[in-house]
Amino acid sequence: MYIIVKNNFQIRTTCFEGFKSMKAALVSTKLHHLYRNLIWRSFSTKFAMANSKFEYVRNFETDDRCLPNTWIVVRVDGRGFHKFSEKHEFAKPNDKRSLDLMGKAAGRVMTEFKEICLAYGQSDEFSFVFKRDMDLHKRRASKLMTSVASIFTSAFVFHWPQFFDIPLKYPPSFDGRVVLYPSTQNLRDYLSWRQADCHINNLYNTAFWTLVLKGNLTNAEAEKRLCGTFANDKNEILFSEFGINYNNEPQLFRKGTVLVRDKKKKSEEELEGRLTKDILALNEDIIGDAFWNNHKILD
Amino acid sequence: MYIIVKNNFQIRTTCFEGFKSMKAALVSTKLHHLYRNLIWRSFSTKFAMANSKFEYVRNFETDDRCLPNTWIVVRVDGRGFHKFSEKHEFAKPNDKRSLDLMGKAAGRVMTEFKEICLAYGQSDEFSFVFKRDMDLHKRRASKLMTSVASIFTSAFVFHWPQFFDIPLKYPPSFDGRVVLYPSTQNLRDYLSWRQADCHINNLYNTAFWTLVLKGNLTNAEAEKRLCGTFANDKNEILFSEFGINYNNEPQLFRKGTVLVRDKKKKSEEELEGRLTKDILALNEDIIGDAFWNNHKILD
Amino acid sequence: MYIIVKNNFQIRTTCFEGFKSMKAALVSTKLHHLYRNLIWRSFSTKFAMANSKFEYVRNFETDDRCLPNTWIVVRVDGRGFHKFSEKHEFAKPNDKRSLDLMGKAAGRVMTEFKEICLAYGQSDEFSFVFKRDMDLHKRRASKLMTSVASIFTSAFVFHWPQFFDIPLKYPPSFDGRVVLYPSTQNLRDYLSWRQADCHINNLYNTAFWTLVLKGNLTNAEAEKRLCGTFANDKNEILFSEFGINYNNEPQLFRKGTVLVRDKKKKSEEELEGRLTKDILALNEDIIGDAFWNNHKILD
Amino acid sequence: MYIIVKNNFQIRTTCFEGFKSMKAALVSTKLHHLYRNLIWRSFSTKFAMANSKFEYVRNFETDDRCLPNTWIVVRVDGRGFHKFSEKHEFAKPNDKRSLDLMGKAAGRVMTEFKEICLAYGQSDEFSFVFKRDMDLHKRRASKLMTSVASIFTSAFVFHWPQFFDIPLKYPPSFDGRVVLYPSTQNLRDYLSWRQADCHINNLYNTAFWTLVLKGNLTNAEAEKRLCGTFANDKNEILFSEFGINYNNEPQLFRKGTVLVRDKKKKSEEELEGRLTKDILALNEDIIGDAFWNNHKILD
Repeated sequence: MYIIVKNNFQIRTTCFEGFKSMKAALVSTKLHHLYRNLIWRSFSTKFAMANSKFEYVRNFETDDRCLPNTWIVVRVDGRGFHKFSEKHEFAKPNDKRSLDLMGKAAGRVMTEFKEICLAYGQSDEFSFVFKRDMDLHKRRASKLMTSVASIFTSAFVFHWPQFFDIPLKYPPSFDGRVVLYPSTQNLRDYLSWRQADCHINNLYNTAFWTLVLKGNLTNAEAEKRLCGTFANDKNEILFSEFGINYNNEPQLFRKGTVLVRDKKKKSEEELEGRLTKDILALNEDIIGDAFWNNHKILD
Repeated sequence: MYIIVKNNFQIRTTCFEGFKSMKAALVSTKLHHLYRNLIWRSFSTKFAMANSKFEYVRNFETDDRCLPNTWIVVRVDGRGFHKFSEKHEFAKPNDKRSLDLMGKAAGRVMTEFKEICLAYGQSDEFSFVFKRDMDLHKRRASKLMTSVASIFTSAFVFHWPQFFDIPLKYPPSFDGRVVLYPSTQNLRDYLSWRQADCHINNLYNTAFWTLVLKGNLTNAEAEKRLCGTFANDKNEILFSEFGINYNNEPQLFRKGTVLVRDKKKKSEEELEGRLTKDILALNEDIIGDAFWNNHKILD
Repeated sequence: MYIIVKNNFQIRTTCFEGFKSMKAALVSTKLHHLYRNLIWRSFSTKFAMANSKFEYVRNFETDDRCLPNTWIVVRVDGRGFHKFSEKHEFAKPNDKRSLDLMGKAAGRVMTEFKEICLAYGQSDEFSFVFKRDMDLHKRRASKLMTSVASIFTSAFVFHWPQFFDIPLKYPPSFDGRVVLYPSTQNLRDYLSWRQADCHINNLYNTAFWTLVLKGNLTNAEAEKRLCGTFANDKNEILFSEFGINYNNEPQLFRKGTVLVRDKKKKSEEELEGRLTKDILALNEDIIGDAFWNNHKILD
Repeated sequence: MYIIVKNNFQIRTTCFEGFKSMKAALVSTKLHHLYRNLIWRSFSTKFAMANSKFEYVRNFETDDRCLPNTWIVVRVDGRGFHKFSEKHEFAKPNDKRSLDLMGKAAGRVMTEFKEICLAYGQSDEFSFVFKRDMDLHKRRASKLMTSVASIFTSAFVFHWPQFFDIPLKYPPSFDGRVVLYPSTQNLRDYLSWRQADCHINNLYNTAFWTLVLKGNLTNAEAEKRLCGTFANDKNEILFSEFGINYNNEPQLFRKGTVLVRDKKKKSEEELEGRLTKDILALNEDIIGDAFWNNHKILD
């Protein structure tokens, strides 16, 4: 694809010469731009003649631009990650290596797309928030979601050896989707929804695996034990039976990871532990207002 | 994500017991199915209560199912592959390693999605054709294009070391799109369009790089030389000045790669050079009828 | 809206004079067309300046062009026609005046849109089939369905007095939708579905109203009587209890109305009873092949 | 269509009896609702069996729900109104009868759809604003735009004789479209855009027709005279040559018509001139803040 662009450019450049006098008559930038277009289209048409019999099939593509002035969220989700996590012996209920690798891959996406102002991830998913006024790829949903899914996957495989000792057994993959949120409140509710989901799942999984690994229950017994229980019940089981205070579990597991940009200059020391020079990974509550008051991201 | 499904299933299972008498009253499979749904929704609702305040944001997702009874084509295209090919010192005008790796990655996609009946690739792009009656992922465009883009990318990075001696310098990526073709003729014209594009670009690039590498022209001089020329002219330059018969160039470069399934049992010998046991990579003309008469793929 | 187009045209015309020399340089029709566009855009931009601050809101419109090479069906359905038919004392179970008026309104739609090759109607609905290769309004779904719904409604109200003695009590309305069918078989199945629907409903209604009007049952009793019955049962009730052979009921009621174009010259006599000189209303079976063999409409 | 719904309801009702014991077991409203659905679907399936072979074609309809929490604007535009206005001898540059009839028709739309909070019209167009949290017709774009276009058209034809002495020569029609606006500012800019358009066109038309009707210029001469002029120039022509102060022209012509709801009780006197008891037609500026401060419509 890239080559044809280059070729066309070359043809266009050359052919401009013959039209110098016309060009001189065009004064405003706008006219000049239109004129270049005009000439260019004329010649690229001729060039592509051999191809023109079939080219009508391009018209079958649809225009899927996202509604302007909405927050664009792209979320990627692991495909078949239950099996993937077993094949690669992930720790239960949480594998810190995997979560860190997810964060690393998300950082790569943010590095490629400056238009992303925030990302939030947990378990095998990551959500990317594009600024509402951005115009990257003309806001075409297809371009945005496939690019994000592809970059994320690529970085996940590329950086795997930095986080895992065992090699990848097969190529993992992530699907993606685009969702639009018209108001900032809608967007915050979306992010709250994902973090609440993280909490619900993690509490369940922590209780489940504690019953299995420390309580010596079978999986079926643990399931039965937890069936119908509420959050309080699970906290109680963990505390009274195993001496585990759930609130002391790592924030990474309980809150997930939020990536934000921070361009203030930092000392060497402060930069330590950062994803990149400009991207900060936090494990904080994003449901309440405190986080948003500290980071004026959505204003 | 996978875990919550499991959890719900567990709760559902348990709770079924209390409803055994009701269940007995339901005879037809259909009623039974609806009933299970009914119970399940009731309980998963309770379970997710903590999350329910935010869950309304799910309704912002759109239903993007592809029109039934149409050929679904997903095409992936390299993002920024001009730079990528330079950074990784691709041979000019074609790098066989890269094309083989592309084919390998495409084979992986076909292995994961049995619903794909054919794939065609050239340069840094690959198109995947889903059977028109398939119902994978409810034909949701987002799911299909992101999954294909992600699997393709993942396999490209995963298998890189099998094809290249130098390590990847950074994670490459591919965008994707979905296009629907209502008739088989439209689909064949699409594939012809891509193969004609392969031909046009490859002829240009072969002439260009021959002028540069063997003719000692600068890039600018080669561009100028080719500006405004037609296919005949380029063939003539290659033949009369460099003794190159373009038609003897490798089919891989001139025709691209088409992947088809072939489930006939094969001897060890015949299997050699295959992508997988069931997938065959061919470098044939797909514009004419011969290929399609041999491979009853679209019937 | 129309006026601004005219104004712009005028401005464009005048301003062309100053560019005559440039114009002379442009030879091909295509270039000339692009050039006119270029000049025109430049000036219409200036003209609309006062409006430009707000004009960005146009970008919020979405492109909803129908997939090319598919049959486009627009169906209109009466809104609240149960109440409407009661208020205007429609005959039960069928009101011939209403059905004829529906046909008249549909004929008007076909007169305005030559791209419609066939229409089928029954009860308070009418379906319009656009030729698959047509390009009216760039195949924009919004334009097509709203125009059809509007013309149909307009003609329904306009021609009301020709069919009904009592005046309209309030303005009736119809909603509309667009559905695409990729293959001719799909389209025929769609039309068969609507005609089968006509049959099922009409048989039920004929039995129901016969029980009420001739059998002196209350509505509730008639409903109870028919509950759970199949087609055979209803035929039997009509025949054995009331001496009615359902198959002798008017085709208009049992088959609905199909409108086709017929441009063969006709004698005065033959033209009688036609909707228009060119449009023929038929009450035939369109599920079997006979109709389609006679009328080569979809070929 | 309405009849089959009734039929199904009847069947459903009857059949419920046999399931009374099951029903008793279901306590919560939600379960009850699901249960009714379950039974209903089972029976309506059997009923429609004859139709089932073709019914698959329903799946070709697409879900076109509008993004939640956005302002939904439906605009209708006259189709071919240049010709229509000439055939029906509209006064130039503005025909008060036509504008009043447009307002009347728009009032009818608002009476049918309580979810519309405001409408704005000028020339041959009218825009309807649905409240951003409304859920009418599940926010399906097709339903909304076709219903609005149809009701509007119907009322336009229905009420024609109240406003015009001459009869309609043929049925007029309006197309429609849906546009979504995420923020209230976007919506206000949309409405400002339409009113600015009204101003620009009306000033031009007033000047044009004054030159023709009072200045005795031909159309072509009037066009030439105005070519390239700005607002100031047109005001000046009107004032210095014809003694017309454009700002004294009727607000109806210069500002268009905005319809709002006003449910405060009114004396007989105050109700005079209202579209309906609850709907008020105003000819005010809606670009500035004053109107919006007076009418808390979008808050």
